[in-house]
Amino acid sequence: MMRMRFPLLLLLGIVFLASLSVSFGRQRHPDEEEQSSNNPFYISSDRLQTLFHNQYGQIRLLNSLHQRSNLLENLRDYALLEFKSKPNTLLLPHHLDAHFILLVLSGRAVVTLVNNDERNSYILEKDDALGIPAGTTYYVVNPDDNQNLRLIKLAIPVNKPGQIQQFFLSSTQYQQSYLQGFSNNILEASYNTELKEIKRVLFGEERQELEGVIVQLSKEQIRELSRNAKPSSSISSKDEPFNLKSRNPIYSNNFGKLFEVTPEKNPQLRQLNILLGSLYLNKGALMLPHYNSKAILILVVNEGKAKVESVGQREKEKQQQEKTREVQRYRAELSEDDIYLVPAAYPIALNATSNLNILAIGINAENNQRNFLAGEKDNVISHIHKPVIELAFPGPAQEVEKLIKNTRESYFADAQSQQRQDEERKRARSDRFASILGA
Amino acid sequence: MMRMRFPLLLLLGIVFLASLSVSFGRQRHPDEEEQSSNNPFYISSDRLQTLFHNQYGQIRLLNSLHQRSNLLENLRDYALLEFKSKPNTLLLPHHLDAHFILLVLSGRAVVTLVNNDERNSYILEKDDALGIPAGTTYYVVNPDDNQNLRLIKLAIPVNKPGQIQQFFLSSTQYQQSYLQGFSNNILEASYNTELKEIKRVLFGEERQELEGVIVQLSKEQIRELSRNAKPSSSISSKDEPFNLKSRNPIYSNNFGKLFEVTPEKNPQLRQLNILLGSLYLNKGALMLPHYNSKAILILVVNEGKAKVESVGQREKEKQQQEKTREVQRYRAELSEDDIYLVPAAYPIALNATSNLNILAIGINAENNQRNFLAGEKDNVISHIHKPVIELAFPGPAQEVEKLIKNTRESYFADAQSQQRQDEERKRARSDRFASILGA
Amino acid sequence: MMRMRFPLLLLLGIVFLASLSVSFGRQRHPDEEEQSSNNPFYISSDRLQTLFHNQYGQIRLLNSLHQRSNLLENLRDYALLEFKSKPNTLLLPHHLDAHFILLVLSGRAVVTLVNNDERNSYILEKDDALGIPAGTTYYVVNPDDNQNLRLIKLAIPVNKPGQIQQFFLSSTQYQQSYLQGFSNNILEASYNTELKEIKRVLFGEERQELEGVIVQLSKEQIRELSRNAKPSSSISSKDEPFNLKSRNPIYSNNFGKLFEVTPEKNPQLRQLNILLGSLYLNKGALMLPHYNSKAILILVVNEGKAKVESVGQREKEKQQQEKTREVQRYRAELSEDDIYLVPAAYPIALNATSNLNILAIGINAENNQRNFLAGEKDNVISHIHKPVIELAFPGPAQEVEKLIKNTRESYFADAQSQQRQDEERKRARSDRFASILGA
Repeated sequence: MMRMRFPLLLLLGIVFLASLSVSFGRQRHPDEEEQSSNNPFYISSDRLQTLFHNQYGQIRLLNSLHQRSNLLENLRDYALLEFKSKPNTLLLPHHLDAHFILLVLSGRAVVTLVNNDERNSYILEKDDALGIPAGTTYYVVNPDDNQNLRLIKLAIPVNKPGQIQQFFLSSTQYQQSYLQGFSNNILEASYNTELKEIKRVLFGEERQELEGVIVQLSKEQIRELSRNAKPSSSISSKDEPFNLKSRNPIYSNNFGKLFEVTPEKNPQLRQLNILLGSLYLNKGALMLPHYNSKAILILVVNEGKAKVESVGQREKEKQQQEKTREVQRYRAELSEDDIYLVPAAYPIALNATSNLNILAIGINAENNQRNFLAGEKDNVISHIHKPVIELAFPGPAQEVEKLIKNTRESYFADAQSQQRQDEERKRARSDRFASILGA
Repeated sequence: MMRMRFPLLLLLGIVFLASLSVSFGRQRHPDEEEQSSNNPFYISSDRLQTLFHNQYGQIRLLNSLHQRSNLLENLRDYALLEFKSKPNTLLLPHHLDAHFILLVLSGRAVVTLVNNDERNSYILEKDDALGIPAGTTYYVVNPDDNQNLRLIKLAIPVNKPGQIQQFFLSSTQYQQSYLQGFSNNILEASYNTELKEIKRVLFGEERQELEGVIVQLSKEQIRELSRNAKPSSSISSKDEPFNLKSRNPIYSNNFGKLFEVTPEKNPQLRQLNILLGSLYLNKGALMLPHYNSKAILILVVNEGKAKVESVGQREKEKQQQEKTREVQRYRAELSEDDIYLVPAAYPIALNATSNLNILAIGINAENNQRNFLAGEKDNVISHIHKPVIELAFPGPAQEVEKLIKNTRESYFADAQSQQRQDEERKRARSDRFASILGA
Repeated sequence: MMRMRFPLLLLLGIVFLASLSVSFGRQRHPDEEEQSSNNPFYISSDRLQTLFHNQYGQIRLLNSLHQRSNLLENLRDYALLEFKSKPNTLLLPHHLDAHFILLVLSGRAVVTLVNNDERNSYILEKDDALGIPAGTTYYVVNPDDNQNLRLIKLAIPVNKPGQIQQFFLSSTQYQQSYLQGFSNNILEASYNTELKEIKRVLFGEERQELEGVIVQLSKEQIRELSRNAKPSSSISSKDEPFNLKSRNPIYSNNFGKLFEVTPEKNPQLRQLNILLGSLYLNKGALMLPHYNSKAILILVVNEGKAKVESVGQREKEKQQQEKTREVQRYRAELSEDDIYLVPAAYPIALNATSNLNILAIGINAENNQRNFLAGEKDNVISHIHKPVIELAFPGPAQEVEKLIKNTRESYFADAQSQQRQDEERKRARSDRFASILGA
């Protein structure tokens, strides 16, 4: 353990020093920005750890989120799980040592929660969410004939921050039933039955028929498991699923829409201090630069591609004794299943390079505000006193104020400025003209 | 400091590697389980650190609970204190930099709490509990003529997680009064008295008469200190002691009883998010396998002996790139004063090998549920849909359902299965028969 | 990184060992106490890290408070900022990734808070406080013609415990606007304007006119920025400033006064679990020995000088296996801008060697109690049962009780005891007599 750790630390140290050595001057534009490859906030889909997979589906884990950057230490209490399953399948009953919020990205799910005294089944569709308390035994059906199910879970572990354990009841080719952890005497006394019989009924023979914790279901089984399953409710309740789109989007125009449920609006989210959002951007749209006042956001790309830029700061050596901080750009190209972390107070802008759907999970979300830096509405710069604008920026106050709102849209806009569009149109026209002449 | 730490880490590393090297295959029953000796959840009574002892009693500490296993990191904010005193004694006035919950295991105590503006005395008996806010000056009398007093305190430190400091007013052979920490000038001005006089009245001469912080009391002194001491109240209040047995047991049958007070039922426990329980099992009884949904439990053996088994998981190397987790059994034989830690979501079963009383302190206890895995009631497996049972276990659903409840009891049962009893009876009979024949 | 860290750790180790090696016996008075130089609770003003300074003012930071002593680990979530500015200046608009409480030490400030949908200005004077939520864009005017402004902020970071980042909108000689972190394409699309124009209006030319983030203001600009600025309110509100002296002092006599606002009395403080106090002591006054029951206090010296003593404990090696703890005195001489940390439950006494004003910030402050160890009122020792007093102290109970309250004052008293004053008066008289005789 020691031997492994030292070289690792050394390696990290070197990487860190290397990342610091890229310095740049004051007036130079920060074009040596962090690309996807060394942007600590970008997590490519293939970086998730596979906990289980077979022909019917897979479970993948992302934990130690806070280790990606010391700026995200407040994420250490959380882990993210991704689950995918084929049509007509079942994820077998199990429980976790973590609270979690489950969110359906695509497909449909019938989720059954079992406690010591009751059972509840819910049918969830895209953008449905459900809070599941730690220790609840549950199982998940993909009842669809054609569509894959994909969902993510934000987990808040109760034993050790950021680390989760799954306890399955079944013994399969891949793992033992947790009941097999008890000794023969305890098992015989608990079930008042001979060990041989217990083994036959609960754990099976040497050659396991189960290929793992995701198994196929017949149509009839699905019908039975879906019976009485309740759909998401528009009334916010303590234990029923809710849909992110059951209320009007908080922002909406021709370029995109953002649906959001905050802790203030839902008791399941309030208890965990979490917000959930679903962002839809059309191809070529820009979510205008903005920052979240206090929530740290985990973005999960559900569909499409996007370019993202976020702005932080880093220390810069100086001749004088003062250490100053310099603006640092973080950049990534996101595609399906990728994850992007947004620290609180860090400005961010998103450019959809295809039709895009991103799910957002925000921690420490109570009373979070989104402050925009461009556009008509919610533009924090537009509220600054005119004399301060005059001192803060080199241009005259009127020009700054005009510029700041020159995009007449709010929240979402065209990712190509009007000017550039005009130019391109002009150039295209003159090209056409030239080619006509040339021809 | 560095020099000491490295070998220690190395040693820990080796122990850790050694513990990992005990690997076992899938189908083999995990009989190479963790025994008491290397079970991280088991803490033998002699592992507590003695803070003080003299002929009249002792104070022992258990902190760094979370260092026993990285699975218990959420215990790092807590420490456990054990206090024992002889009949007719007094633990001298002091305060701690920690909130705590005090719980009487045996004997009687008169506890006096002193603040800047008031004094309150309470008389506590077995299974009485009392929350004491950080910084409260208090002292503890054992008013009994014959019986020793034994109590435990769960401490939640306010300066540094898991570390406590005791501030005593008295100077004894073993430690100085904290008042002696002030300089002569401050003392003289504070008490408007000459230093010599202060030393005579408050701190005593070179040769101390006090043999430490636990001292003997006369009958008359006990009478005076017990006057107006209030007993525990059945009404849950913010500051008066309460008895764990003032309500009906939550589980009760011929084999045992569990009394429990949860944060929902008592404001002192609510504030600290703690549950307290007192478990009584008859000799030969089994508390059926179950898990706590979210609380981490600290069990303290008050009387008797028990075998305990808890079930966790550990990582297992695999040929493929996936790391899977394997069931791991943790086992210990508990006797008086021993401590056992139970992570949330970990299945556990307890077998009383003599009449047994265990006290349970649960942290993160709000809304905790106990899910049983065998027996008639609160059996989480019994609520799973029949088709899922069919897929999860090799036996037919009906046989699984019958097996799971084959012990007609709930919560507590006979630690010897009926079958084995029958067999033994049969064998005994045939032995007798054989001996008759043989004779 | 590794290379730097090792010598540092080694150095710390040596310092730590050195600090431990000063041991002293039981009966000896702890006169080898910790002086200012190696008292971990004392932070000289010159230890603050300068984040920015120019001719108009400065911003200084104190973080990693918890690293000063492992007794203060619960301070790790906090940082302290100090801000000073000259008359007629402006601190330019910016936001932080931290909640904070702002407290005016001297001078006046017009603070404007800007969000996505509103702007509010407040005028703050000495002992005014204001809570500012994380991510709020704000700017601070010193509207006075003559007086410097000095304020402190307790910051509670939302990304990483103890670490804050400031995001300024302006590009100056010292740092870039965070807007410059976005790429050209994003900027052009966001402001629907050509890059050249954006650079001209928002970021300025190569040669910056701004000398940093604190700039001069004209009288007219100040008038405009002060218009509609609301003063502190005596009604405790969620978002308006409040004055520590708007209520009567909690303690007051001829020697001093303590004003305090607790979480129970103000919603801004309740949310962060903070208390604020302003202590005034006359020259030669003593704040009597006392301890805070659960709050950890950060004291900031605003005016004057004081000697402070606090009392803790440290481990002492013993022949037997038990480790005992010994009283340890911590001592410091405080002057303007110095900071002193007081762990919960640690006794402390303060002696004003000139007229003194100290600001106190208490964390974990809900239900905190101040327990005094001398004086008439709130004296915790005076409430202890007489038989316990008799056992706890060598002197007879009556003498102890008399001594404990011999200073007839409460809370604050003369730092020179009556006895010593009498003696000195006598000596002075006999000196005078002698000199008369001698003459």
